[in-house]
Amino acid sequence: MKLPEGFTASGINCGIKKKKLDLGLICCQDFCKAIGVFTTNVNPSYSVVVCRKNINNPIKAVLVNSGNANCYSHKSGLKDTEKIVFELASTLGVNKKEILIASTGIIGKKLPKDKIIQGFPFLIKNLSGEAVDFSKSILTTDTFTKVSHAGMSLGGTQANILGFAKGAGMIYPNLATMLGFVLVDVDMPDNIFKESVRDAIQKSFNSISVDGCMSTNDTVIVLSSRKVFIKSKKDVDVFRQKLYGVCLNLAKMIVKDAEGATKFIEIKIDGAKTENEAKKAGLCLANSNLFKCAIYGASSNWGRIISALGQAGIKVGEDITIQSSGLKNKNVRVVVNLKRGKASWKVYTSDLTPEYVKINAEYS
Amino acid sequence: MKLPEGFTASGINCGIKKKKLDLGLICCQDFCKAIGVFTTNVNPSYSVVVCRKNINNPIKAVLVNSGNANCYSHKSGLKDTEKIVFELASTLGVNKKEILIASTGIIGKKLPKDKIIQGFPFLIKNLSGEAVDFSKSILTTDTFTKVSHAGMSLGGTQANILGFAKGAGMIYPNLATMLGFVLVDVDMPDNIFKESVRDAIQKSFNSISVDGCMSTNDTVIVLSSRKVFIKSKKDVDVFRQKLYGVCLNLAKMIVKDAEGATKFIEIKIDGAKTENEAKKAGLCLANSNLFKCAIYGASSNWGRIISALGQAGIKVGEDITIQSSGLKNKNVRVVVNLKRGKASWKVYTSDLTPEYVKINAEYS
Repeated sequence: MKLPEGFTASGINCGIKKKKLDLGLICCQDFCKAIGVFTTNVNPSYSVVVCRKNINNPIKAVLVNSGNANCYSHKSGLKDTEKIVFELASTLGVNKKEILIASTGIIGKKLPKDKIIQGFPFLIKNLSGEAVDFSKSILTTDTFTKVSHAGMSLGGTQANILGFAKGAGMIYPNLATMLGFVLVDVDMPDNIFKESVRDAIQKSFNSISVDGCMSTNDTVIVLSSRKVFIKSKKDVDVFRQKLYGVCLNLAKMIVKDAEGATKFIEIKIDGAKTENEAKKAGLCLANSNLFKCAIYGASSNWGRIISALGQAGIKVGEDITIQSSGLKNKNVRVVVNLKRGKASWKVYTSDLTPEYVKINAEYS
Repeated sequence: MKLPEGFTASGINCGIKKKKLDLGLICCQDFCKAIGVFTTNVNPSYSVVVCRKNINNPIKAVLVNSGNANCYSHKSGLKDTEKIVFELASTLGVNKKEILIASTGIIGKKLPKDKIIQGFPFLIKNLSGEAVDFSKSILTTDTFTKVSHAGMSLGGTQANILGFAKGAGMIYPNLATMLGFVLVDVDMPDNIFKESVRDAIQKSFNSISVDGCMSTNDTVIVLSSRKVFIKSKKDVDVFRQKLYGVCLNLAKMIVKDAEGATKFIEIKIDGAKTENEAKKAGLCLANSNLFKCAIYGASSNWGRIISALGQAGIKVGEDITIQSSGLKNKNVRVVVNLKRGKASWKVYTSDLTPEYVKINAEYS
């Protein structure tokens, strides 16, 4: 898979994990424009703290490590993270403010900063227009790489979007506990770019839940290498649609790779008063253990839906309708019509299974 | 087990379930003073609606059925419930406002009101000072009856508290999804009685969680037959302590009987700014799937605790301490010191196990 114009990437093993790739780099030929969305967990990782600080600067590179969350490990965790960023910036000949960083893995273990810094020469040497190594380097308990591409013609010029994600456990929006990196070579006025990104993320990464547990490390970064500039409504609409498509693909892949899951569940809420209400209704089902156990058992269980909605403060009438299909298959669809308005929202989740419990009892 | 003075009770099978007891009655010799605490789920059962309406009246009897939640079943569900209450009141020769009702079981199935009404003569005939049949009649998937007694001498007079509960699944405070009935023969000024009851419930039934799923039917009712009147601070203190003890015993029994659980977990939060903050911190752990899976796997997982606290908005410093004991045993104790104040709270929960998932995939 080729990266969009203006980007190179690489992935290596630097020794955080035994053999698997654990350090990835995205490098921008020129400086990129970046938008980031981060966890709302109030105990964020050191990487999130540093990344949030730098996100509004022109960006030269994004460093990602897997196997260690870089979070609540020791008193100088933040200083160590700044040291890593400083060293990478020096090696690339840029300012430390122009580097982003993301981490995923176990919380509470000291990040081996020297191993990471010693890996930089090899990491930089391996940079290429190929996406494979990077896509592998960001994984933890994921069972497959998550990459999604969309090409489009904008005013006669070919443009591209390429997205990467990692997920598996601790997945819940605001943000979903996961990492996502979306590279685009398209540029547009800042406000339109921001709005397009936020809209795409709301309807994708922020509409999934695996287990209702919000990570300390959630990060989605969208980078534009600004090779193709668009302004017309028509071009912007094409871009928005494609960006949403890539984000949704990645978000769905995260749910499909959910720990121990046997089913992919699409929950559609219709007839809500507002989109917010529809989303809240969808997410309260996606986070209900009892609902998710019921789907695992191939039943949609009317009572558990009523009960979960009521717990979330969504009062329903006896005329509520609940339709489900594919309960015995891998792909389940549940449509709930609240019969109180015209707004809709879709959320995506997985079933709760004995295997999920086993995996999360053994992890660590 | 004998009921406190002024009460009789009974339990029969009226045909909601095949053979097991499914209809219970508590009857007051004279009229009782009642305090009720109900689910905050905004889609409550018809029984909760009627019970909430009558709770502040003098009470003659409490009717309880198991096997059917009497919730979101059909348009005349509320009318049917009022009919049942009216018929019981007529049979007992009192006003329908003087009857309380509670239900537990599956949501969405029509309550067989005729079977219940036809059961009244037999139910009333069986009334006695013995607690056993009633304690059985309120159970659903519970594996044992939950009864707790405390006796005390108040100003030379013997007084008693006897409490009943049912639990098993859909257990989460505000109120925990469960039924609780506590009978006391002690009376005191109204404001002191209310405060004693609320305090006892906050620290017991409202401090447990099995699966974070809040039922439509949660109800705790405390009834005083007003045989022994107390006023002195010393007597009130003895009563409060005993009432708290009975409620805590019942709440712990509910957690110990949690569906599929292998461990009973006591979470103590120390060093919080306020009791509310400590309670919130405790409950966010008790409702974290990842924390509960970790305990099932005999690990307390530092990272999952940090992460769950952060998701709940509780920012912690690197100096937080987490101690756990008994991880490999049935009784686990986790003590988290937030190091930011002097308030403490205890919550009680169970582990999340493959068996929980299996039970809840098969139920219905």
